[in-house]
Amino acid sequence: MLNKVLIDEMKERVFSANLALPEAGLVKLTWGNVSEIDREAGVIVIKPSGVPYSTMEACHMVVTDLDGEVLEAGLKPSSDLATHVQLYKAFKEINAVVHTHSKHAVMWAQSGREIPAYGTTHADTFYGVVPCTRQLTSEEVASAYELETGKVIVEAFSEKSIDPLAVPGVLVYGHGPFTWGETPQKAVENSIVLDEIAEMACVTEIVNDRIQPIPQYLLDKHFFRKHGTNAYYGQT
Amino acid sequence: MLNKVLIDEMKERVFSANLALPEAGLVKLTWGNVSEIDREAGVIVIKPSGVPYSTMEACHMVVTDLDGEVLEAGLKPSSDLATHVQLYKAFKEINAVVHTHSKHAVMWAQSGREIPAYGTTHADTFYGVVPCTRQLTSEEVASAYELETGKVIVEAFSEKSIDPLAVPGVLVYGHGPFTWGETPQKAVENSIVLDEIAEMACVTEIVNDRIQPIPQYLLDKHFFRKHGTNAYYGQT
Amino acid sequence: MLNKVLIDEMKERVFSANLALPEAGLVKLTWGNVSEIDREAGVIVIKPSGVPYSTMEACHMVVTDLDGEVLEAGLKPSSDLATHVQLYKAFKEINAVVHTHSKHAVMWAQSGREIPAYGTTHADTFYGVVPCTRQLTSEEVASAYELETGKVIVEAFSEKSIDPLAVPGVLVYGHGPFTWGETPQKAVENSIVLDEIAEMACVTEIVNDRIQPIPQYLLDKHFFRKHGTNAYYGQT
Amino acid sequence: MLNKVLIDEMKERVFSANLALPEAGLVKLTWGNVSEIDREAGVIVIKPSGVPYSTMEACHMVVTDLDGEVLEAGLKPSSDLATHVQLYKAFKEINAVVHTHSKHAVMWAQSGREIPAYGTTHADTFYGVVPCTRQLTSEEVASAYELETGKVIVEAFSEKSIDPLAVPGVLVYGHGPFTWGETPQKAVENSIVLDEIAEMACVTEIVNDRIQPIPQYLLDKHFFRKHGTNAYYGQT
Repeated sequence: MLNKVLIDEMKERVFSANLALPEAGLVKLTWGNVSEIDREAGVIVIKPSGVPYSTMEACHMVVTDLDGEVLEAGLKPSSDLATHVQLYKAFKEINAVVHTHSKHAVMWAQSGREIPAYGTTHADTFYGVVPCTRQLTSEEVASAYELETGKVIVEAFSEKSIDPLAVPGVLVYGHGPFTWGETPQKAVENSIVLDEIAEMACVTEIVNDRIQPIPQYLLDKHFFRKHGTNAYYGQT
Repeated sequence: MLNKVLIDEMKERVFSANLALPEAGLVKLTWGNVSEIDREAGVIVIKPSGVPYSTMEACHMVVTDLDGEVLEAGLKPSSDLATHVQLYKAFKEINAVVHTHSKHAVMWAQSGREIPAYGTTHADTFYGVVPCTRQLTSEEVASAYELETGKVIVEAFSEKSIDPLAVPGVLVYGHGPFTWGETPQKAVENSIVLDEIAEMACVTEIVNDRIQPIPQYLLDKHFFRKHGTNAYYGQT
Repeated sequence: MLNKVLIDEMKERVFSANLALPEAGLVKLTWGNVSEIDREAGVIVIKPSGVPYSTMEACHMVVTDLDGEVLEAGLKPSSDLATHVQLYKAFKEINAVVHTHSKHAVMWAQSGREIPAYGTTHADTFYGVVPCTRQLTSEEVASAYELETGKVIVEAFSEKSIDPLAVPGVLVYGHGPFTWGETPQKAVENSIVLDEIAEMACVTEIVNDRIQPIPQYLLDKHFFRKHGTNAYYGQT
Repeated sequence: MLNKVLIDEMKERVFSANLALPEAGLVKLTWGNVSEIDREAGVIVIKPSGVPYSTMEACHMVVTDLDGEVLEAGLKPSSDLATHVQLYKAFKEINAVVHTHSKHAVMWAQSGREIPAYGTTHADTFYGVVPCTRQLTSEEVASAYELETGKVIVEAFSEKSIDPLAVPGVLVYGHGPFTWGETPQKAVENSIVLDEIAEMACVTEIVNDRIQPIPQYLLDKHFFRKHGTNAYYGQT
């Protein structure tokens, strides 16, 4: 049986994180969705599909099991649910996923290019390039589009041996960004950073078309200043 | 005789949709106009010409017949009325038209290029390229400029066999965008999307100058995920 | 003797127009100034120099004669006053001048290029290219910089036989835009339009690097739809 | 013993200046920090590390001595403190330092290029190019990263014989901008100007790819119109 207190707290967090997307300018109309997983409780909570942010309430959030099967009568879940489920299955240590069509991340996703690490703003959050998936095949799109989208993300990370905790986001070719994190709020912050570094990277190349990524030692310094056991940024 | 209740409801919807344009950042000063048609009642309701948004009221909306002849004493209709009328005559299933000078759509209109479908944000609303009309001739501009603007839009759709319900917007060469939809609100949303994908497409080409449009199967998938009998996006 | 009622009304209009600049996003910090002239009364009212918008009041506006000599004890006038005076002397039918460092107009001014008329948004307000002055010489800068800035603007219009009423704005090479109009409000609107078309023109060239200005007949159509005895835009 | 009244006033100023950064759109999340020095009192006051702006209070500001040693129990100082300390040691006449990851300044920092003086908006605040430091070496990053960041800034100014009072800001290669000034408020204003001229410079080069910096005499005129004994901008 579902733990109502736990579920209600998840709904509140997921609801707040969804609202944070248009507030941060990452989402127009109904584009974008946030989910959270509780692996022990066996539930995922996600935004309902196509509901305007202005009328959305915490109680509208949809509860599913770990395979994405809806557990409560009510609204339909986000159509991107199956992508979230795949990410949760493959990336065991993440607790929240965000999808947006934020402008600058989409521009890179549409260009089919990974985002190089051109500076410390990038390195503070993403430990190396933000990968871009390969294009989905006709068969993948026809069979189970959203599930296959999740699989192609996982493939991009495993092929390039990228740790999803060190690079908490990705561009889906021709589509847009997904990010993740320990909490819905953290996953939203990663979406904010991803869009910002996408914009910065584009203009960096315009200002200097021969620019190279920052050296590995600077990438290391900034990432590990904020992450891991030797982090010294922020309060303890 | 005019049905006052029906007309007043149309005026409210058209008024709200006009206000939504500056709120969405699509319109500066008095640029932009929205209209709605009721073919059975034989009326079009449209924004008055050159009235500031800050002092505009629902009762200022102008009522015309299906040929654009004003039916009530009051303010002059938008100078673009004749374009709206042409679109209503040619596109029998649309109920609302929006014209703006929104920045990014104008940039493409001024460049004389159609907008390629570079991603799923595009495909979710526009099923293929957003066409750009040919340039109006000197004779067309001199004779009946706004009416000819409507005709050249219709020509662009018929020449390329584009369905105006599948591609609910257009760029007029050297001028700017028109969009349409089932309701004024939907037509405004299509203007929001059009400006967003115009901006995304421009930078997509900057980030990767050899990028190609997304494949037809992905265009199909995203458009029909949201439109038609097999749509599964949103609530039912 | 000064007509206090008339002066106070001018101060109110000039004050409001100055406030409208940061509200429209055209001005940061204390950059920008608006003035109004009353030729019959023999006075110019202009923003004081370097006063923050947040603490500025209508009574702070500075009153000068037609040569820019201050007529009331109080704050110092904008350091650009001498430029305004030159424009009023040369362009007899204008009643207000605006100077800003609005982003996109400055970009063009810094590039040293006139803005081509790439579309009807441009043509609705500016009947042809927005000229860019030549660079001031070392001697001109050393002798009477602000006055010479006014002269080089006037030179740009007379050399190219441009009517300042038909093209109510200019770019000063390496500096930024000045606009003017019948009223302070109208001059501010022209600054808003100038910045918008500057941005549009830049990206138009990026989207299509071989784009040409719109033909003369379309320029004529749009400008005279809004200006002159045959104008039919707006209410009468 | 610390002068509590003086310290509290410094905390208020530093707190206000920190809040001004997100208000000006220069800072997202917790990126950015402001400090103030009182050399006579022997104290530096700086933002705490990684504290969200929404919950930050004046009393959270951290007090250190002139070597950056914390003098009061409480929160940890900004991780960039050592950079601020180096700047205060080398630039004897500055009283406040600001660091941000503001978008356009970062784009130039990531491109590794100094910002040329393309116009008077630049010249009003920065008397010549805004320099970009060399890249830090692996050894510098490994040993004392933030301290070495300060040193490389000082090196950039001394190598090119740039006066830090005439050019109150810098780009750190691959990282972002630092600015300074007589007061925290002035240092923040310099950050606002730096981001604005960075954006303007980028597009100036796009509009005209052969553009040259403004001549020295115009740079002189604008800078000394606002600074030094012959300044005549603003009220006295």
